Amino acid sequence: MRFLIDHGFQGKLYPVNPTSSEILGLKVYPRLTEVPESSVDYVISCIPAGGVLSLLDDCGKKNVKLVHLFTARLKETGRDKEIKLQGEILQKARKLGIRILGPNCMGIYYPKLGLSFNHELPRESGPVGGFFQSGGGAGEFVRYAALRGIRFSKIISYGNASDIDEVELLNYFASDSETKVIASYIEGVKDGGKFARALALAAKKKPVIILKAGRGRAGAKLALSHTASLAGSIDVWKAALKQYGAIMVSNFQELIEQVVAFTFLPPITGRRVIVAGGGGGKSMISADVWEEEGFELPELSVAFRKKLKEKSPELWDWVRNPIDASLFQGTPVVDINLLEWLSNEEAYDIFVANLTQDDPLPNDIWEKVLAPNFLPSVMAIKKNGKPLICVIETGEIGLEEMKNWKWRAIAETRRQVIDQGLAVFPSPESAAQAVRRLVDYWAWRESEN
Amino acid sequence: MRFLIDHGFQGKLYPVNPTSSEILGLKVYPRLTEVPESSVDYVISCIPAGGVLSLLDDCGKKNVKLVHLFTARLKETGRDKEIKLQGEILQKARKLGIRILGPNCMGIYYPKLGLSFNHELPRESGPVGGFFQSGGGAGEFVRYAALRGIRFSKIISYGNASDIDEVELLNYFASDSETKVIASYIEGVKDGGKFARALALAAKKKPVIILKAGRGRAGAKLALSHTASLAGSIDVWKAALKQYGAIMVSNFQELIEQVVAFTFLPPITGRRVIVAGGGGGKSMISADVWEEEGFELPELSVAFRKKLKEKSPELWDWVRNPIDASLFQGTPVVDINLLEWLSNEEAYDIFVANLTQDDPLPNDIWEKVLAPNFLPSVMAIKKNGKPLICVIETGEIGLEEMKNWKWRAIAETRRQVIDQGLAVFPSPESAAQAVRRLVDYWAWRESEN
Repeated sequence: MRFLIDHGFQGKLYPVNPTSSEILGLKVYPRLTEVPESSVDYVISCIPAGGVLSLLDDCGKKNVKLVHLFTARLKETGRDKEIKLQGEILQKARKLGIRILGPNCMGIYYPKLGLSFNHELPRESGPVGGFFQSGGGAGEFVRYAALRGIRFSKIISYGNASDIDEVELLNYFASDSETKVIASYIEGVKDGGKFARALALAAKKKPVIILKAGRGRAGAKLALSHTASLAGSIDVWKAALKQYGAIMVSNFQELIEQVVAFTFLPPITGRRVIVAGGGGGKSMISADVWEEEGFELPELSVAFRKKLKEKSPELWDWVRNPIDASLFQGTPVVDINLLEWLSNEEAYDIFVANLTQDDPLPNDIWEKVLAPNFLPSVMAIKKNGKPLICVIETGEIGLEEMKNWKWRAIAETRRQVIDQGLAVFPSPESAAQAVRRLVDYWAWRESEN
Repeated sequence: MRFLIDHGFQGKLYPVNPTSSEILGLKVYPRLTEVPESSVDYVISCIPAGGVLSLLDDCGKKNVKLVHLFTARLKETGRDKEIKLQGEILQKARKLGIRILGPNCMGIYYPKLGLSFNHELPRESGPVGGFFQSGGGAGEFVRYAALRGIRFSKIISYGNASDIDEVELLNYFASDSETKVIASYIEGVKDGGKFARALALAAKKKPVIILKAGRGRAGAKLALSHTASLAGSIDVWKAALKQYGAIMVSNFQELIEQVVAFTFLPPITGRRVIVAGGGGGKSMISADVWEEEGFELPELSVAFRKKLKEKSPELWDWVRNPIDASLFQGTPVVDINLLEWLSNEEAYDIFVANLTQDDPLPNDIWEKVLAPNFLPSVMAIKKNGKPLICVIETGEIGLEEMKNWKWRAIAETRRQVIDQGLAVFPSPESAAQAVRRLVDYWAWRESEN
């Protein structure tokens, strides 16, 4: 009730509980059948499993369309009695024409309607939709991705998938006009062939990112006791996802990076990258990780070197791609010129701007010049229209460090850049991996047409 | 001068500059030969390259032992004149019996003496030493690793390595009693055979972690213009590092994770892991990533299940390794009991405690119960004496989020755990990778004896 009220749920809410008369300012009804409406659309069940069958009877009387069973400890316990009860619940729901979401799940986060299953999820909507077999994973994904500027159409936690399952959800999101990118966390599927066919259709419409959990022995056993899922062979999964054009990621962090890439970057199929910013070490590692993901770092053009020669005769033939921006300290070339010239280069597909704090300049110069210049500089590149990626490392900053102005300046810059709708990644390697998968996807789409 | 004064350098400091009379409260001498000491140990040169030869003449008169050339734009420019000048500098230094660090480097961070080359590096000493061909990379590494509780014996940025090079530095750190773990960032080596022999000796004494930069085409070209290094074939590097027992990492983040692992964990050679904490999704992904790194997640013992059965008859046969701690909500089993029982399990080598914020419990319970309980719980495991790893995800938190109590509570908990000298990693996958490399190293050491 608190999540729904906090998120401003736009419909009518009726708490049902036999022992209290008021919850969070709302009148409580002792039983669903006492609710003063001839029909009720949606019931969220938080009662113990043993009470669900009789709740369903009441739902039938109120013409309920969908019951979300937050209720758990059914098939996932692995015990005969609970497995049988889950079957009976499904059977009764089917007889009454009621759809079941779950059991053992968090249900629906649909910010447009104010439906929420957790604290502090964004209230605004956005283009990322998805279905998660883990409810905790869904909540954490939404919260962390939100800090990267991601907003959501709807996120559905579906747990044991007794009725509404991964195939139906994938089909739904594939045709949902509010969803441009599909993210998912799947422990197991009920019917591999059906899922493959749904995937083949979905991935041709929009990017489908799948975090497959239960890839090893321990994970497969745990899948049974977590959501009663059969994990399946990971090799089969890998082959199928590749064949049908879905993007496979290995952990929640990669899932977030991938969603950031697909949300903020256009369909890119080229692999030529210009990297600028950061000192020599950061530039070296950037070169390595981008190349290791199959990108190419083209030489800088004669036209660029000519412009550079006018302002900085000592550097014009020396700098390379990636551009070690620290070389320009003390020259008349300021970051914003450099980036503008670079962004006018023709022979590249992606521009990567690194902001690092590996800088020996005095604090005041960093604070007054470097940090405030980053946003205008990257916006100058953005004007050019080529895909732009920012790498800003604030990974390990905790409470105490926030008192330090330099970390604060980095965090503030990061927030400003995210607020401009730019793709920000926490490291060169996470950027290169996510963008490689994005380019692979769009190249595959192109090859399919 | 500012870095040295800020870090409380313990020797005498003499600024030399022809045009000013006072710098930061210190008397300035117009020329090194005017300094009122018959001999000077160490000179840091920040003058342009063209003045270094005559500076060396003055150094000779003052019996200087070591000159650090922060001075750059020598061999790395790729220009004949500068390459020749670097050679002349080295020749003159040799003739005068002076050692050269650099050119084109940040020099020495030695907190015990108050030597520092950057802002806000820790003043306390610790067991990690290392040599970095990138000065910016060295500074950023120190700052980020410091936030993970790492402290340093000395970190040396050595740039173009005209005199003091990677072989000499590796030999030095291998025999340095203040250094227990060696971290390095290398773009190229001058003599592969010599370096391999030094590595073979060093890695048998202590862990040697190498971030090799310049692994691809663009990076190799950049290595020439960054530190005038020949990057060498990455396949040769990989083979050599493996043969000689060094640990190869791919980026600065991995370097930090690896240093955290070697600093805070004992020599582990077993690969059986118990994972506890977090919801089902986090547990699933933990199982996958640990298994994918070659670890095994053993079944829980009969003795543990017996204890569990007494307090929680509904869960005793259901929970598995990894332990989904969210199952215990509402049972009489509290985290601290659970972890204590688990830590008494016999058949495991490493205990992994996950703290996640993927929790639908009301904020006040999280704040008053979950966050404050984490530290006592992990300390209860630590008492047992088995290697303990904490995974606390605070990766993407910025300024604004810090105002939110939940992020604050996580960041505070993280700080407390780090302050106890525990190994904290930001994700299951970073933990599993770093610990796998640690176990590989100690298993290799065992096999060599």
